[in-house]
Parts: sequence; C-alpha cells; structure tokens
Amino acid sequence: MNLKKSPLAPENFPRLPLVKGMLMGTAKSQVKYKKRDDILTVVFEKNTSVAGSFTQAQIIAAPVLFCKKNLKSGKAKALVVNAGIANSFTGRKGEENTKKLASFTSKFLNCRLKDVYTCSTGVIGEQIPLRPTIKAIKSSFQEKSVSFESAAKAIMTTDTFPKGSGKTIKIDGKDISIVGIAKGSGMISPNMATMLAFIFTDAAIDQKIFQTLINLGLRNSFNAITVDGDTSTNDTVLAFATGKAMENEKIKPFSGIGDARLRKFREALEYVMNDLALQIVRDGEGAQKLVEIKVSGAVSSASAKKVARSVANSPLVKTAIAGSDPNWGRIIMAIGKTKENFSENKIKIKIGKNLVIHNGALAKRYSERRTKKYMRNNSILIEIDLGVGDSQSSIWTCDLTEKYIKINADYRS
Amino acid sequence: MNLKKSPLAPENFPRLPLVKGMLMGTAKSQVKYKKRDDILTVVFEKNTSVAGSFTQAQIIAAPVLFCKKNLKSGKAKALVVNAGIANSFTGRKGEENTKKLASFTSKFLNCRLKDVYTCSTGVIGEQIPLRPTIKAIKSSFQEKSVSFESAAKAIMTTDTFPKGSGKTIKIDGKDISIVGIAKGSGMISPNMATMLAFIFTDAAIDQKIFQTLINLGLRNSFNAITVDGDTSTNDTVLAFATGKAMENEKIKPFSGIGDARLRKFREALEYVMNDLALQIVRDGEGAQKLVEIKVSGAVSSASAKKVARSVANSPLVKTAIAGSDPNWGRIIMAIGKTKENFSENKIKIKIGKNLVIHNGALAKRYSERRTKKYMRNNSILIEIDLGVGDSQSSIWTCDLTEKYIKINADYRS
Repeated sequence: MNLKKSPLAPENFPRLPLVKGMLMGTAKSQVKYKKRDDILTVVFEKNTSVAGSFTQAQIIAAPVLFCKKNLKSGKAKALVVNAGIANSFTGRKGEENTKKLASFTSKFLNCRLKDVYTCSTGVIGEQIPLRPTIKAIKSSFQEKSVSFESAAKAIMTTDTFPKGSGKTIKIDGKDISIVGIAKGSGMISPNMATMLAFIFTDAAIDQKIFQTLINLGLRNSFNAITVDGDTSTNDTVLAFATGKAMENEKIKPFSGIGDARLRKFREALEYVMNDLALQIVRDGEGAQKLVEIKVSGAVSSASAKKVARSVANSPLVKTAIAGSDPNWGRIIMAIGKTKENFSENKIKIKIGKNLVIHNGALAKRYSERRTKKYMRNNSILIEIDLGVGDSQSSIWTCDLTEKYIKINADYRS
Repeated sequence: MNLKKSPLAPENFPRLPLVKGMLMGTAKSQVKYKKRDDILTVVFEKNTSVAGSFTQAQIIAAPVLFCKKNLKSGKAKALVVNAGIANSFTGRKGEENTKKLASFTSKFLNCRLKDVYTCSTGVIGEQIPLRPTIKAIKSSFQEKSVSFESAAKAIMTTDTFPKGSGKTIKIDGKDISIVGIAKGSGMISPNMATMLAFIFTDAAIDQKIFQTLINLGLRNSFNAITVDGDTSTNDTVLAFATGKAMENEKIKPFSGIGDARLRKFREALEYVMNDLALQIVRDGEGAQKLVEIKVSGAVSSASAKKVARSVANSPLVKTAIAGSDPNWGRIIMAIGKTKENFSENKIKIKIGKNLVIHNGALAKRYSERRTKKYMRNNSILIEIDLGVGDSQSSIWTCDLTEKYIKINADYRS
C-alpha cells in the first residue's frame, strides 16, 4: 500500500543545527526497501555519554535486550539502526544476529562491544539477513557524514514523513545543540511501526544526570502519546551527549543536578522530546486531527494521566472526534470507567474555549453549534478538571478514522 | 442513520418457551422513537426472587443506583424499562424521576416500592419526560401479555435485531423454563448502546443461590465479551425466578447449592446467558466476524482472561481480523504488553485448526495461505496457550471495520 503524507505533517523537515562530535552515515541493505537507504550508523567521538529508555512490554526484541545491557556502561561509540526487520520474537538466533552486527561494528571502529548500540524496526518474527546488512553498515561508515534529514529518512518504515527537531541554547555564551530524530508511524505497534527516537547533543553531561533528565522528559513526550493503546516490542529512546561543544570551548561541564545552567538545557531537551513525540502522533495511521487531552484537578499526576489515557484510548471518543462531534457523553463514560478519584458533581469539561460540563452538569451557556465548529479544526484540545486535587497531566493522541482501518486491515494483503 | 441488520444476526428470533408467573406489556411513549414501542413492563406473581449485576463504572445512572438498593430485599413485583433516554449523568433530578416512575408503578400494582426494578437505556445527560413515560407504563399494564420477541424489540436502541434465548429443562419430570432477552448494540457504551439483559425462570430458587449462579454465569457471558473496551453507565443484568413451575406442580424447591438437580438448572442458565452475550457481540457495530479468543495454560483464569482481553481489545488485532490477515505478530504484541505470566519459549497459538506459533517460534508446518482462508469465515477461533499453568478463559469479540468508524463518527451528525 502506498501511503500519502499525513495531512498533519509539518510542511518541511526543520533546519537543524550541527552537533559536534558525531558523524552519520546511511546505506542501502536492500533487504526490505529496494530504492532507499535503510541503514543508519552514527559514530561518536570518545567520552560520549548515553542515556535511554525502552519498551515496557514483556516480549522484548533482541536489540533492545542488547542496548539495555550496554547502557549500564554509560558510554557510546556507535549507533547502528536497520529498518525493515524488527528482530523481535526471533529467539536465540535473533540475539546472536544482533551481537554479530555489533561485533562487526566494534571491530571495524576498534571500540568495545559494550559501546555499540543497535536498534531494529520492521516486521516481527523474521531474522535479519547478516551479509547484506553488514555490507551496508560497512559502506555507511565509509560515506561522508549525511544530514539529519537523510538520517531520519533511513529509519522510516510506514512513516509518511521524516521526523526531526532541534534547539540551540547558549551556555556560558557558547552555542550548544540538541537535536533529535524519530520514527514511528503513529501506531505504536510491533509490525513495521515501532517507535525509535534518538537525541544528540554536544553538551558535556554526566550519564546519571542525563538519564534523570531523559526520564523526566519522557513523562511529557514519548510516555504521553497514544495512537491505539498498543505497545511495541522494540520501542527505544536513546540520547547521546558528545560533550564536544563544551570540552573544545573549555566550558565547565554541568557540575550536577543543582547546576543552574542545567535548567536551560533541560527545557530545550524537553522541547525536542515533546516535539518529536507529537510528530509521531501527527503521523498516526489515518490521523486527521491532533488531540490533546489535558486532565487537571487530579489527586496526582499519575492519576491525571490514567484518566487522560482512558479518554485518549476510547474508540468511541476517537471516532466522535473524527466526526467533529462534541459527544461529551462518551468523555464522561471514559472518565467513569477508570478507577481514579474524581468528584462527579465538580467535573468540568472544556472543548477548546467551549465550556461543556460545569459542576457535573451540561453548562448553561453550552453551544453545540460553536463546539462542533471548533472540532472541525485539525488540532483539538479537550480539558477535563476532575475537581479533587491540584495535579495535572496531558496525553496527545489522534482521531480514529476509516483510513486507520483500511491501512491496518489491508496491511499484509 | 438507518442501520441494516448485522450480517452476524441469527436468521429468526428463536421460539421461546413460556415462563409461568409473569406477564409482559409494551407501549409507545413517543419520547425518542415515534413508530415503535419503547416501554417494557413485566409484572411478576408474588414470591418472585431476583438476582442481578451492574456496571463496574464509577459514573452510574440513576436507575442502576435504584435497582442496586432494591436488590437487597431479594423480591420483585415489577420490572419497568424505557428505551431512548439513559437517565445517566442527570443528577438529583434524574434520581427523583426514576423514583417517580417506580412510585407510580408500586401504587398502580399495589406493591412495595422496593419490589420495583427500573432500567433505562439511551442518550446520556437528558431527563426522562415523566408524563408520556408514565402514561405509556400505565397503558403497558393494561395490554394483554406480549411475546418475548415484542419485549426484546421494545428495549432496543441502536440494536439491529432483537435478542432472545431460552431453554426448557426437566426437574423431577416437570418442565422448567429459563428465558432471557437482551439489548446492547455491540458497543458497550453509554450513548444509546447500554447493555441490558433480563433472565426469567419459573423455577423456585432462593435469592442467594440464584445470585451465586448468576455471578458464576457472568464470567463466561456478559463479563466475557468486549466490542471496544468501553463500559456503559447503565449496564444491568437482572434475573427473576417466579417459582410457579415448581410451586404449582408441588416440586420441592432447590434445597441449596448442594442440590443435585441444580446442575441441570445451572447449565441451562449459563447456556442462555452465554447465548445472549454472544448475540450482543454479533450485533457489534460494523461487526462482520464473531471472534473467540481462548487463552489456556495460564496461572489462573483471571490471568487468562486479562491476556484474552488484551488481544480482544487490540485495535491492531481487530483490524487484522477484519482483513482476514493472520497477523500473528500483533497477537504476540498484545500478549507481550500485559503484565501477566507466560513463557515466551512455550507460547502456542492456533488460528482455527492452524498451528501458527509453537514453542515460541513460527510453526514449521505453518501455512499462511490455509490460515488466511480460514480467517475469511465469519466465526473465528484464536487459541493461545501461555505454557505456564492449567487455567483458561475465553473472551468473545468482533472485528473492527470501517463501518464501526462510520457509525460512530456520524452518530449524532
């Protein structure tokens, strides 16, 4: 099936700053995609620190197991990504194949095996053919460094557009870059649509602090999106800090979590992570609308997120949004089916600027006509106040359309 | 929207036996449906015992609160059902209205208020207009007793066919009837598609034993179905036992849970409950296939059910089934995203008679062509063995089709 670019895609791939201390290469393995590069490699200068996060699923792909183990060392020399085959549910042979790809890389670059990170995305249950893959990895190392746009394109599977984001910040008067690329065609699923996200920065940052910042950033980015509630076996976020913008300029590295300069870095990092995550939702299969479900007045942010997720994952809410129907009864139902705390008499629901539910009843000034008009936009905000606390959380999702069914029912036919 | 009869509907409404000790009436309130009866009342002879179960949601409709309270008395004189307005999220006024309908009924029939059961189904957030509803209730009491088919039709909302099931068993040589009717247009949701099921028997059975049997029966019927994972504010199962087939024939009532004659009764009851539940799935919005997900080899039946539910609710699995695609990768994903116990190396998956996954890998004899052919049937069995225990459980669901989206996106437009 030939997929058209999502109507929610940004017009162009963004202009991204350079990140010092890394070189990227792409190549064609011709395993699944005959006409495009499907291998991405990134080689880092020494002392690059790495942080990451992986799928919460119980069935985990071989490359994820490999990365999880290596992450303990906290250092990275190379990242190797193949698109087309997920190397998931492939047993011991799958694990051996991942190790062979990493082993070739470590020998070629003359680095430790544990400094190599491998990621795979694509169909489940198939083995990666080693010969063409290794050949392509080798040739990617020999290319001149490619752009982030080319890198983002090489990791795509069913994505309809490449995803990138970046920020430059000044630390002690010098430019520091934070850039990310991602793939994941909306549906966070195992079959050709795993989510992968890679963040690169030339800041010098200790691995433990970096990991803490990534964990914090996840809450409002990759852990705050849902397309269909399904979870992949391969989902991976990896973040690399080369340190070269600070080392070479003789700027003091971040001293610790209390370093005042870290706030700026954290904000830029969270911007990039949130932007990438939202691009994944914008590429949701069949998506015509980007939807934010913002829940406030909860007893905890975890509780707010559970309610937001229940609303965001309800097929009834998602189809109503597809039809621009302010069907608040379905939102009430999705809140009501959770086990979370809320006060039925204090619930407040706003759709855009339209107050819909107030003190647990239909708002007096509610206008179905105005609310329906707002819902014809391609970006929708639904705010829910549970009336029992001060905590809040957002989930971003997309609508559920006939095209989603068409794509997923016809996928392998 | 004019909905065509589901392709999974039975050809005809079944022939059902009479149940002694009850009279049914229907009438038109003309509140939401102008051309058809939308009120059902049932009047029971004295000493009718009642058991029931209600929605697990936190936001609960007024009639459900009323029934829950009355159920403690264990006796029933009347059941009153209106279709068109759910009386949910209607606040104190909604509770008063339910009480007024019940109060009229208790005065008219000269019975206790707590022996009246009221059920509502339809749109959320609107109040029941009392005058036309009470008028229709009154006229339904004055009609001659109607058939179960007419009764099943009067409680429909977006259902495309009336749902009924029944069995006759012999206890001490005499006929005992168990009959049920239900509504719920597949989508177990608050907006015109609540699930209601009513069981009637002329057996004489103590309320406590009856409640136990209903609870047991639920596990393999109304608690084992899912269309879209959404839960209604009004879901209700009520079961009435008039006792008249045994009292009049001077058969000893069931003595207790150890009564050997109870097994036959329980089997018939479970047959009726399972049959009604499956009819609800067969009327799932846009459904083209009835699907059973049977999970065995689990550490407990609760664990098996959680895995089955994860597979049954996965939009990716459901769309693959719609496309007759044996996409076992998606089944693996849906198992893997649960927190339940399983052994990745022992997982076995069968689709119909086709062994797909064996010892955690693609089965050697697996034929995609044969499996695809099987999946073109309108009734699909997917069996999953988790390889860690002896417990099992089934969930019944339907496929997710473009028509589901069309129905739910256009619903109020």
